[in-house]
Amino acid sequence: MSVRSLIVSTLALAAAAGFGLPAAAQDAATVATAVALRDQVLKDNVALDYVTQITTRFGPRPAGSHSEQAAAAWAADYLKGLGFKNVRIQSFPLVGWERGVDSGSIVGPHPQPLVVAALGHSIGTSVGGIEADIVRFTSLDDLMAAPAGSLAGKIAYVDAGQLIANQDGSGYGPMSRLRGAGPAEAAKKGALAFVMRSAGSDEHRMPHTGTTRYVDGRVPLPGFALSAPDADQLSRLVALGGPVRIRLNSTAHTYETTSQNVIADVPGTTRPEEVVVLGSHMDSWDLGTGAIDDAAGGGITIAAAKAILDRGGAERTVRVVLYGSEEVAQPTNTGNGGGAYLRGLSAA
Amino acid sequence: MSVRSLIVSTLALAAAAGFGLPAAAQDAATVATAVALRDQVLKDNVALDYVTQITTRFGPRPAGSHSEQAAAAWAADYLKGLGFKNVRIQSFPLVGWERGVDSGSIVGPHPQPLVVAALGHSIGTSVGGIEADIVRFTSLDDLMAAPAGSLAGKIAYVDAGQLIANQDGSGYGPMSRLRGAGPAEAAKKGALAFVMRSAGSDEHRMPHTGTTRYVDGRVPLPGFALSAPDADQLSRLVALGGPVRIRLNSTAHTYETTSQNVIADVPGTTRPEEVVVLGSHMDSWDLGTGAIDDAAGGGITIAAAKAILDRGGAERTVRVVLYGSEEVAQPTNTGNGGGAYLRGLSAA
Repeated sequence: MSVRSLIVSTLALAAAAGFGLPAAAQDAATVATAVALRDQVLKDNVALDYVTQITTRFGPRPAGSHSEQAAAAWAADYLKGLGFKNVRIQSFPLVGWERGVDSGSIVGPHPQPLVVAALGHSIGTSVGGIEADIVRFTSLDDLMAAPAGSLAGKIAYVDAGQLIANQDGSGYGPMSRLRGAGPAEAAKKGALAFVMRSAGSDEHRMPHTGTTRYVDGRVPLPGFALSAPDADQLSRLVALGGPVRIRLNSTAHTYETTSQNVIADVPGTTRPEEVVVLGSHMDSWDLGTGAIDDAAGGGITIAAAKAILDRGGAERTVRVVLYGSEEVAQPTNTGNGGGAYLRGLSAA
Repeated sequence: MSVRSLIVSTLALAAAAGFGLPAAAQDAATVATAVALRDQVLKDNVALDYVTQITTRFGPRPAGSHSEQAAAAWAADYLKGLGFKNVRIQSFPLVGWERGVDSGSIVGPHPQPLVVAALGHSIGTSVGGIEADIVRFTSLDDLMAAPAGSLAGKIAYVDAGQLIANQDGSGYGPMSRLRGAGPAEAAKKGALAFVMRSAGSDEHRMPHTGTTRYVDGRVPLPGFALSAPDADQLSRLVALGGPVRIRLNSTAHTYETTSQNVIADVPGTTRPEEVVVLGSHMDSWDLGTGAIDDAAGGGITIAAAKAILDRGGAERTVRVVLYGSEEVAQPTNTGNGGGAYLRGLSAA
């Protein structure tokens, strides 16, 4: 979930749902309703309970995985148990991606392990892995400026420096562009694989993952993120001089599967055909349990809708959609849960 | 290296090395010399250069590994290059330990990976791993109080809570005792394996490793540390109720090898047979590069001795010893570098 989509104020929600007051009195009454809802939600444990249960029971929930499917079935029961109406699961086809096993190491007289993670949707390496000298770049532009063919037989390594976490996300933007475009750019220059410093601000030895970009139906090269200390290590080795040789392994692959949206309503009292959607996503990347991205979003939207339900509903229908496959729009740009929801609506 | 052994003041060093002054004037002159040495060392980059090079070139340096051996050979050349005299490598036999590959997972309808690390010197599991329900304890005492045979066919899991980092190390003491004694206690009750929350204060998903205790020549059970988030996850699953089944794999094993101490002198000008040893250790655990534990100690001792060397030496010999195998005293309690140094001295 993007940060922006989380910034939905309770006030705006209360206004949109329409609590059935004359226009003149609506503003003050809406504020009072919003305050009451806010206070109620802060007193109960619905959001925390949802986050705790979904992350604990299912752990990582990659889009289209058995774990995401099982979590959706459980969440539907959970929403029914809370009293939501018309709870249903909307399935849609998806090209899923499985990491399998990935690993990396520095090769040579003094071998040492690297902590790497294949970038989401990367292809795997051949069995036995890819071993080659690295060529270091310091930005996507730097990589793009490399002459054609200059990376033949090499592994492109981009260390664009440690990501600084800014409130406006400006640190993440360039790193996510690099993650998306890097493998294709490296492939253009003849590289065998692409490695980058993680698009994360963490200093510990855990790489950041996230999706990269398809070209002609697949990701052109195996792409990997290095944890920050490992990126420091590789860049220091380059600075010491001489060739730096690494080995990369990945059994990542795509497969045909299904994902699903879980949909639950608080039916509108007087204008049920007008729907206010509170959306969040259920899937998560595979290296954690997706507590923040986006079980927390699910907890917030469920708790807000539950508070409205407990109040007897609103004029309009308030609908919670727990989307599957948040950003898995590749290779067809039709695979994500938001698109499936819209298509399901138009077909209804 | 223990924290205490690092607390060697430059003043004490200068006094012990003896800078050849009459007794009456020695205190004030010693202080002046110490201040001059301190200022010189803070201006140069010897310590940082050593830490950077040894961690970058060799990465992790487990006791007795090729990496530790190669690092020792490099460090001897490094010390010669700095102008130290009588640089030599003292080899000694060691029972080494190799982690191999380790992994863990929660088993069941909703499988999910656990991030684990075998405890140092643990035996490996059988091929295919150990799969069993866990029994949760909250302390070593709690585990010790379990009835004999009560863990037959089970995996003992001790979550003693998250380690709090205190300046006096009081958070680490109980956790390291648990790490040492846990596998043997679990074995007494019939358990198949031992798992504990990491003896580390980190909150990220990287387990803490460190040595456990031999009984009758080997560690009785495969023992593992869980990263903090994984320990939270396992304890939350237990709290949800029902059996919690996990699988643990480890190919850890011991092997016959050699370790070594690297010794380098600044010969004493008038009392060379009296030796002041500045000790630190070169080996490190395998999950990082040992920059703090203890490349930094090496950097500090080398830089201090180099400053004395540059000053023309001291009355007494100042000797840097970069020990191998800091705490690998098992199974014979004769394997560590400090013991080997003492035996080498007595034989000389």
